[in-house]
Formats: sequence, C-alpha cells, structure tokens
Amino acid sequence: MHMERVKVAVAGASGYAGGEVLRLLLAHPFVEIGALTAGSNAGEKLGSLQPHLTPLAERVLEETSVETLAGHDVVVLGLPHGQSGPLAAQLGDLDDGVVVIDCGADFRLTDPADWERFYGSPHAGTWPYGLPELPGQRERLAGAKRVAVPGCYPTVSTLTLAPAVAAGLVQPDVVVVAASGTSGAGKAAKPHLLGSEVMGNVSAYGVGGAHRHTPEITQNLGGLTDGPVRVSFTPLLVPMPRGILATCSAPLAGPVTAEEAYATYVKAYADEPFVHVLPPGQWPQTKSVVGSNAVHLQVTVDEVAGRLVAVGAVDNLAKGTAGAAVQCLNLALGYDETTGLSAVGVAP
Amino acid sequence: MHMERVKVAVAGASGYAGGEVLRLLLAHPFVEIGALTAGSNAGEKLGSLQPHLTPLAERVLEETSVETLAGHDVVVLGLPHGQSGPLAAQLGDLDDGVVVIDCGADFRLTDPADWERFYGSPHAGTWPYGLPELPGQRERLAGAKRVAVPGCYPTVSTLTLAPAVAAGLVQPDVVVVAASGTSGAGKAAKPHLLGSEVMGNVSAYGVGGAHRHTPEITQNLGGLTDGPVRVSFTPLLVPMPRGILATCSAPLAGPVTAEEAYATYVKAYADEPFVHVLPPGQWPQTKSVVGSNAVHLQVTVDEVAGRLVAVGAVDNLAKGTAGAAVQCLNLALGYDETTGLSAVGVAP
Amino acid sequence: MHMERVKVAVAGASGYAGGEVLRLLLAHPFVEIGALTAGSNAGEKLGSLQPHLTPLAERVLEETSVETLAGHDVVVLGLPHGQSGPLAAQLGDLDDGVVVIDCGADFRLTDPADWERFYGSPHAGTWPYGLPELPGQRERLAGAKRVAVPGCYPTVSTLTLAPAVAAGLVQPDVVVVAASGTSGAGKAAKPHLLGSEVMGNVSAYGVGGAHRHTPEITQNLGGLTDGPVRVSFTPLLVPMPRGILATCSAPLAGPVTAEEAYATYVKAYADEPFVHVLPPGQWPQTKSVVGSNAVHLQVTVDEVAGRLVAVGAVDNLAKGTAGAAVQCLNLALGYDETTGLSAVGVAP
Amino acid sequence: MHMERVKVAVAGASGYAGGEVLRLLLAHPFVEIGALTAGSNAGEKLGSLQPHLTPLAERVLEETSVETLAGHDVVVLGLPHGQSGPLAAQLGDLDDGVVVIDCGADFRLTDPADWERFYGSPHAGTWPYGLPELPGQRERLAGAKRVAVPGCYPTVSTLTLAPAVAAGLVQPDVVVVAASGTSGAGKAAKPHLLGSEVMGNVSAYGVGGAHRHTPEITQNLGGLTDGPVRVSFTPLLVPMPRGILATCSAPLAGPVTAEEAYATYVKAYADEPFVHVLPPGQWPQTKSVVGSNAVHLQVTVDEVAGRLVAVGAVDNLAKGTAGAAVQCLNLALGYDETTGLSAVGVAP
Repeated sequence: MHMERVKVAVAGASGYAGGEVLRLLLAHPFVEIGALTAGSNAGEKLGSLQPHLTPLAERVLEETSVETLAGHDVVVLGLPHGQSGPLAAQLGDLDDGVVVIDCGADFRLTDPADWERFYGSPHAGTWPYGLPELPGQRERLAGAKRVAVPGCYPTVSTLTLAPAVAAGLVQPDVVVVAASGTSGAGKAAKPHLLGSEVMGNVSAYGVGGAHRHTPEITQNLGGLTDGPVRVSFTPLLVPMPRGILATCSAPLAGPVTAEEAYATYVKAYADEPFVHVLPPGQWPQTKSVVGSNAVHLQVTVDEVAGRLVAVGAVDNLAKGTAGAAVQCLNLALGYDETTGLSAVGVAP
Repeated sequence: MHMERVKVAVAGASGYAGGEVLRLLLAHPFVEIGALTAGSNAGEKLGSLQPHLTPLAERVLEETSVETLAGHDVVVLGLPHGQSGPLAAQLGDLDDGVVVIDCGADFRLTDPADWERFYGSPHAGTWPYGLPELPGQRERLAGAKRVAVPGCYPTVSTLTLAPAVAAGLVQPDVVVVAASGTSGAGKAAKPHLLGSEVMGNVSAYGVGGAHRHTPEITQNLGGLTDGPVRVSFTPLLVPMPRGILATCSAPLAGPVTAEEAYATYVKAYADEPFVHVLPPGQWPQTKSVVGSNAVHLQVTVDEVAGRLVAVGAVDNLAKGTAGAAVQCLNLALGYDETTGLSAVGVAP
Repeated sequence: MHMERVKVAVAGASGYAGGEVLRLLLAHPFVEIGALTAGSNAGEKLGSLQPHLTPLAERVLEETSVETLAGHDVVVLGLPHGQSGPLAAQLGDLDDGVVVIDCGADFRLTDPADWERFYGSPHAGTWPYGLPELPGQRERLAGAKRVAVPGCYPTVSTLTLAPAVAAGLVQPDVVVVAASGTSGAGKAAKPHLLGSEVMGNVSAYGVGGAHRHTPEITQNLGGLTDGPVRVSFTPLLVPMPRGILATCSAPLAGPVTAEEAYATYVKAYADEPFVHVLPPGQWPQTKSVVGSNAVHLQVTVDEVAGRLVAVGAVDNLAKGTAGAAVQCLNLALGYDETTGLSAVGVAP
Repeated sequence: MHMERVKVAVAGASGYAGGEVLRLLLAHPFVEIGALTAGSNAGEKLGSLQPHLTPLAERVLEETSVETLAGHDVVVLGLPHGQSGPLAAQLGDLDDGVVVIDCGADFRLTDPADWERFYGSPHAGTWPYGLPELPGQRERLAGAKRVAVPGCYPTVSTLTLAPAVAAGLVQPDVVVVAASGTSGAGKAAKPHLLGSEVMGNVSAYGVGGAHRHTPEITQNLGGLTDGPVRVSFTPLLVPMPRGILATCSAPLAGPVTAEEAYATYVKAYADEPFVHVLPPGQWPQTKSVVGSNAVHLQVTVDEVAGRLVAVGAVDNLAKGTAGAAVQCLNLALGYDETTGLSAVGVAP
C-alpha cells in the first residue's frame, strides 16, 4: 500500500464541497494541503469563510487558475458546473502526471446530448466515474489520473436501486423521491435558500424530469441491465443542512419476497466498507451518516402495490461529494480506500 | 345561513389535534367553547399544556366521558385511534341531536377487514367522510350528525391525485411519497420523536404498505375510478413541526400534455375555497399553508418517464385535521363553509 | 368606534415586514388593500414572491413612489432603514390627511446624534412611538397621523423590563440577551443567512453595544426612570424563522421578593389586551406567540446573584413589526385596538 | 508517551453522552471498546439504539453493574446524576487500578451543601475536575485514577470568562445567558423535548439561579479570584441538537480597552490545543465546533454599558461531555492529550 505523502490543491475552497474536502483532508495522514483557490473570494482568508477550519484559518485564497494549481500531486475541483471542463483541459496540457478529481458534473455523463440538454454548454468529455461500489468500477478507479465524482442524488439513488436492478428483481421503471438538505444547493446566496424560507418548510423542485441528475441516474442504472431504463426523479428540499434520503421503488419483475430482496442487498454489499444494509425492519435516517462516508440502506416488498421499495441515506457533502472524492483519491493513488474517512456519523 | 351560536366540547384538548381545534374555534364567531376533556391530563389547567391558548389558560381539563361531553351542540373528538368508537356509541345513546366530529380514524374506513388489519380492533362503523372536495361529498356532509375527519396523509394524497384519476389521465397505480412534520405523530413522548432525534434528520417509516393511511388513500381513489387501484405509500418524517408535502405520480393512461393535465386540475378545483392550483411552474411548499386550511397543488407530465407527477401541500394539523373538522362543523350546522378558517398560511 | 372601511397601501410588499402586514390586513374587516409597491421586485406578481398570500397572488407590484402611494387613507412603509424619511417627506407634502405608519427605524429615535451614529445618515425626525403599552403612549397614538413602529428587539426588551424599571425595583443598569429568529434580518439574500448556515447554529452579532437597537432600548427605559440608564444588549441569531426571546436582568435596587416582582408585573399589564404575564413558574417560549400579537412575560428574583431576571417572548414579525403596525393603525383611525389581531399563537 | 492499548467500558451506552463517547473511542488508536452497559435498555442491541455506530451494531447491552464493568483499564460513566456515586464506590472497592471517568455531576462540586441543595441526595465526594485548561489543572489530571468531567454549561461559561476574571479585568459579578441544543437534556422522552415542541421555539428554563450548573460555574470562577463571585445564569433551549453558545458579561473593574481584553484572552489560551480565540471581529458560532473538541471564543468591551462581553461556543456532547472525557482519559493514561479528538467541526 502506498504511504508516501502527497500535496493536494483544492479549487473552490470557499464553497461547501471544497470546505468538506478540506475537513476530510485535514484528517488524512498522507496528505499535505497545498494551494487553496477561489473565484470571487480570492484574496480573503479562509478563516472568514470557513470558520470551522481553524488549522487553515490564516491561509489566503488564491485565484483559481492553472498556474496556482500547478505543481501538486492531486487537484480537487469543487467548482460550479461547466467550469471544470476548461480548467481540466489546461491542467491536462501540463503533462505532469497530476491526478484531477472533479466534484462537478462536467465529466460524469457519457452522452453529449444529455449534457447539452441539461447543462446547456459543450460536452467536456467523460472520466472514470467515481462510484467504486458499482460492478467493475473500483478497478477502473485504481491508478486513474482523472475521476468524475458522482452527483449526490445519483450516488444514493444508484446504490439504493442497484442490487434490485442488477438482479432483475424489478422492471427498470423506477420512481425516486429524494429529500435533501440545503447544502446540496451550494453557498451562493439566493432568496429561496434563506434560513427564513427553508426552516419549517418542505418543497419540491425540478419536478417532471427537469433535474440535472435524472440522466445520471438513468445512465448508472442502465449499466446494470439490458433494455431501456426509465427514471421518474423528484427532489425535495427539506429543512436540514446535510443529508439525503432517497425513497426508491419499482414494479416487481416477478414474485419475490421481502426476505429475498433483503438477501440480495446484503450479498451485493457484503464486502463494501461504506455501504451498510441495516438489520431487517430498521429504516435509514440521514442523521446516522452525517459527516461520514457511510451509506445506509433498507429494502422491502409491498405485495399489495406490487413494488419493491428501497430507501437509502447518505450525507450529500460527504459520501455524496467530498467523501467520494477522498475515497477516489485513495484508489487513484493506491492508499487504503478508507484512509481518512469515517463510516460513523455524528448523531444526534 | 345559520348564524346562531353553538356550544362545542372538545375531547382530547391537551393533544395537538385538540389544541388546534381550540385555536380555530377561538376565532369562530358562532362557537362557544364548552367542556374540555382529557385522559391522563384531566385535572390540569389547559394553560400548562397549551400555553399558546391564553384565553383558555385557566380552564381545568375534565375526564373524557359521556357525562362531561353531554349537553353540547357539537362534540369534537381528538382521541387516540380506537377510543372514538366506544365513546361515540355512548354519545349516540343520548339521542340529543348532538353533532359528533371525529378527528380519529375509527369511522373512516368502509371495509371492516381493512380496519381490523391495520388497527387491530373491531370495526366501529363508517361515518360520512369529511373531505367536501370529493365529488358529491359536500352534499353528504350538509346537515350530517356524524363526520369522520380524514387522515392527514389521505387528505393531501387524495386531493393531489383525484383530478388525474377521475379524468382517467393516469393508470390508477400510484406512488405517493409524503414528507410530514412531526406533529402528525402526536404529543405522546417517544424517544424517536425527541427534538434531538428529528432535527437535522429525515427518515422513512411504515414503508412497503405498512402505514395505516394506505387503505384510506386506496378507498378514496377507488371511489373516483372503475377497476382496482394500487397505492404505494411511503411516509417520511422531516424536521419541522407542521406540514405535509405529498409527491404523487402514476403512469400515464395515454398521451397527455402538461398543459392538459394542468387544465384538468384547475377545472376540478375552480370552485373550491381552500384548494389552490398554483400558477404554472410554481411548486407547492408547506410553509405557505401553515396554520391555514389551504391546499396548494401543482401538476406536470414527465414524458421521458411516462408519468404524471403532482405535488400537494397541507398543514397536517389544520386542513389535515382540525381545519377539516371546523370546515365539516360549518357544513353540518349550515354555517358558511369557510367561517373561522383562513386560506392564508403564516409564512415565513 | 370607527367602522368605516379604509384603503391601505403597503410599500415594501415583497419583504417580510410587508408580507406580514398584508397577511394581517387580509383578516382586517375594515381594510381594503390598495397599492402594493416594491423596489427591485416592482413589476412582478405578488404570488411569485409571497406564495402564501393567495388572495393577492395576481396583484402586480408597482414602483415605490409618492405617486403610487397617493390616494390612500393609510400608507404602511416596510422599507430598508433610511428610505422612509425621504418618502415620508414627499407624502407629507401631499397634505391629504393620509396616515403614515413606518415599520422602519427612521422616526424612532429622539436624539439625532444616536441616529447618525448608528444609521449613518441625517436624522429624519421623530414620530409618535408605536408602543401603546408604555405609560401615556396609547393616548398619543389615538388619532395620530404618523406612527413610528418600534424595532422588534426594543419592543420585547422594553416590555420585559418596563415594570421593574418604572417601579424602581432595579438599578437601571440592565443586561439583555435576546435570541431572534432569522426573519428579523430580512429577505435580502446574504450568505450568513442561508439555511445551510443558520440551521443547527446559534451565533452572536452586534456584540458590545454595536447593534442599532441599543439606543432605542435605552431611550424607552430612560422614559420610565430618572437618571441615567445603561443597557448591555447582545442579540443572538437562532435557527427558527420567527420569534424573539429576551432574557433581561438588572441588579436589585433593594430588597424585593419574587412574589413582589411578579405582582408588579401583573398589575402593570392588567389591562393590556396583548401582554400576558404567565402563571408563576411558567416561562415564556416563542412558539406560543408565533403569528400573533401577544407578548408573554415572566419574572423572578435571583437572591444569590442579587438580580431581577425577566424573560419576554414576541413574534418579531407580528407584535415586533406588522402586528404593532396594525395595532397602531387601529388606534390612529379609531377602530377597536385589537381588530384583525389575534392574541393566540400558532403552536406547535 | 504511552502507546499501549487499553480496554474501555462504557456505562450508559444507550444515552447521548455514552453514544458520543463511543463515537470518539471508535476513532481512538489505543482503545479497545469493552463492555457496553445500560439501564432499562440492557439486553438490546446497540444498533437499534445508536444506529450511527454501525461498527458496534451487533453488541448487546449488559446491565450496568460492578461485575460487568470489572476487568477494564478504564470505565467511563454516562449515567443520570446521582447514580455514579454508589457505582464508583463499588468500583473503588475492586482495587484493580481502574481509571474511572464520570460524565455525571456526582463528583464535581467541592461543597456538600451545594450538592445537596441542587441535587437532593448525599454528597458522594469530589474528584479531580476534568477541565485541563484551568490553571494547574492539567497537572492534576495527569495520571489521575478518577476524573469528574465538567458540566457542559460550566465548561463553556468558565472558559469564556476565566481570562477576564483571572486577570482582574472585571468585577466577578457575572451574567451568563447560554443557549443550548436539546441533546443536553438527554434522551429520556419528555413532552417538552419533543421535536414538535422545540423546533421553531426558544425557551428559558431554570431561571433565577435554579439551574444545577450555577454552583459549578461559581466554584470554577471562584478559584480564579479572591473574594466572592456572583453568577446570574440563565440557560435557553434552542432548536438544534448540539451546541452551546454562552454570552457572558461582567462590569469592568477599571479602564480596559477591547484590544487589551482581546490580548489577555489570546495570551491565556496561546498554548491550548482546543481553545481558539477567533480573529478580532469574528464571533463564535456553535456550528463551527459541532462534533469537535474545540472551544471558540471572542471578547470585547462595551464602553457605554461599562461591561466586558465575551462569547464562547462548544459542542455540549463533545468538549462539553464526551470529548472532555476522552481528553481526560488521554491525560490520565499518558497519551498525547489530543489523541482521537478533532479540533475541526462538521459544518455546515
């Protein structure tokens, strides 16, 4: 196992994804934190923007550019969608063996048409997809120089449905309703994200297939089955800072008991360090995974409705973004996959 | 229109349903508040249990019994499920013309087998169902002596799906994921309902058809269409005190555009004082209806997934329970249906 | 008592203060809602900005100007501090008998030096102060053409301390720590007010006498006693949308028992329709007053520390702003003071 | 430095203090987790009670008794107040060199009269007080066999005031208003701690010197100055699971500038690994320390009010309880004091 230290730059260090990457890297035994860059916050001290990161409080944010990011072993990008593509192209020109891990959406989708329809700009390309729990994916990530970290909703939705779809327990005509904390919407100040608006409030958005994560979920599940996959995805904004709970269901493909479905899930994730199928009858809650890289799952069969119903929980900023980035960093560099990551949430 | 004053007793005045009934009745111009009764809290002053109801703070709670409830024009029952049946039987023996409005589940279901399977006790019977927005239901409630107030989840789920099901836009094979505030679980102190547990947390419960409201939703939708209805219902507990947001979808029965679906909803509820189909593109949020009897709805069509998706919001304690009780009281006694009720929520 | 209808314009209708004024005016039997004006939101429909105000959803916001506000019986101003002064001057020039009620700070302070130090612009003047519960103040507001609605923190801090200061129970050297919901900070989108930041978080701000409400509290208490008043005021931001709880204490001026202090408070507010001294031993909570014009108070004596300690709760948007505006509107126009206002909060 | 592994038992493993101790011990490189005991939850699996602690999910809780706790190097007690005393006496009889760390109040107070007045039972004795940041206290804890972990409010109140009191900047006549998350009240299900009650709500309790932590704060500050100390302490319950923000003030003893006060604080805590005086002008917020052992502080001088005002933030369950327990375990056993503890909170 690799145990040498590496120097890691973080672009977008003033945002939520960047801040969580830094929180995790501070606990990583083989990482030295290098340049911290930002857009409009460049020039400010990190302490004024991320007051919890006291060991880095005096660090001054630099401009996000290929120059400030050069000279690192790893660059983690926590940028608005569409900004990683051009920057990654420049980093690629350096030809210095740097590992680039993109927390944005730019390199996730394989179909350029999907990208253009949902993101409205030219497709930057496709990188190895940073969900090691998918079949064969861990191997693709080992030693990779480029990694596209999955979206938060696709991470939990895919892992919650994958065993059922892969085993053919269900028709791949799935309904996902996923309730997310507000940090998934980022740190840009918008009126509908004010505390006064979100506290005591639940709302739906991106309804009817309009959310950008829909094609990503479809792509992931499509890799697990033959024939077309259909995904009805509705995200909800709920009054908490972190966490996603995804309620997923699909019509049964044939007779299957709750016990059989459960056994399928237990077997599928038996060797996964971060995916935890709860004991029968215990349903996931987001709080159990807050701050951790854990995924909590449960599944049952509704015989009256003729559907398999599975529920999954992740922390959108951790396993849903920054934790996955560190997990992939470990795989790319040959560290133990769990280095610097916890599977235990901060509860209550 | 009736304008005489009536005397109303409230059983279960120390609970959340009873408290909300009293809050609304205090603003009702034709109601005099009579006996307030409770179970284990009998003997205490209401002010120590419902500190917001200052006009009634010095009232002492009496034991819930046919004797304390006798002599009123109206009795509103806010009791744990299974307790209304026996008490209502005794009230019926009085033969004094009293109007009884039950906020519990005892008289909602028409199928005794459903009742026994989900509630585990003998079926008490079926009363007129207090959802005047259902076709023909307002007429059944006018002058009624007995009313079964609907469950909170069934109220919003039914109203969110009814136009689509009744118009045949969808196959009646629906998926409902409904996020509820914690007051729907009542005021009995249970560890999983502690603030420390629910804040910052979303969880699923009663998954796979196990929740008691499933047969009630099925029954309601079944009255709107021929042939069998299937309901996959998953309730979520979200960190807020009040409000339910129901995300409902079903496979399209044939080609229908989002505009056609929207027009169907607008037409269905054009004359309803409390149901508000939002302008196109604006999706419901629970905060807009908190404290009010309003229902906010929106609908669209997901052509890729082949589903109609509709979202509805109510306050579980108001239109979901106590507001419906007052609305039905108005219908039963001949007052204007909106008397004492607001259609404007307390936001932000 | 006056019972004629009046036409009321609301400037700043897209903000929290304006929205709450409209919510209350919709329930006021003698008010017709006239022009709704805004700054940057002019031209938009109210429904997109205040989705709970469905009866006014189709109303289009006009530019805030003396022209749009002219021709009304009453104009309520819910504008950023410093904007009411110039506008009020223009409205005054109209000489049409209009009643102007300012929810901003512009006309609250009597000392121009205080204004200039804390608000940094020329002093606009001083209007009758809209806290009818202060001695002699109700009389000054009856028939007034101009009213300065108090600040939210000063309202609760003043009412919580006034009986003790006026009766000489304490040395007027007070400490106030007041925890406020986030709506007090307004609807302008700022990063530190994002839901992701405020949920799960308590913070102090304006510490050490830096908050603008400090001189207003000092001014109010100064009117109740001879000699100098000193106020140490610290506001806290707490994770809820509405409500302020003020914890106030001061050194005892001489021997006084808890019972004597309590009796002083009960007597001081015996005739007040909205101020409720709770039963002995019951301490205020903000939830009991949410959405209402009520003030809940309690007081005790800490003999070991030698201090009187009193706690008060209000809804910052209701009695703390918009409720007070309506209460003053009633007084100014000769309606019953409680018209359109509730003393019962929406709980839980 | 000690680096041998020790076996640690946790009594009260189903509660919040015990759960947080276990969360921290799972990350401690030199600890093996031994017996887990409980009261009424004995016999249950830990996974059903602490679903976030998945590595221990299959562990069965044993009865809390000297037999189940015997044979460990360290025993951490997370029991209701009054239960540690008798159990500790029995553990002391074993004479096996065990280190006992009590998270309860039993051994904190030095004055038996204080104990009896506030806790109502015989005084069990006094153990070394687990606040190593107090002068001379770190030395007393090194190698200690018994440690009394401080209360959560006393921890933050003491550390927030200590430099000012010790340096004589203020008269020791302090006012503390401390806002706490709900986990400080424990996991026992009580109606006023339900999520429905605490969300959207702030309340005061134990007002007027009635809270049990008042004498502990007085005792701590008394050790830093000559002459009598007076403490006016008011705790607030705020809607979040974790965290305390203490707003503390006292009359200035003489002329002192904000800069001088700040310099005093910086110097006092210059060598402390967990106490962080924020940059001038930046005020503490609880979220920055959630899940961590950090204490964030700021101080200023209010010249008009003549008071020094200081604000401190801790996580009540971490530095306020379980983090302090682990910090003291490290000192008692000779590990590096920071082993297994983070100074970085989980934000946002």
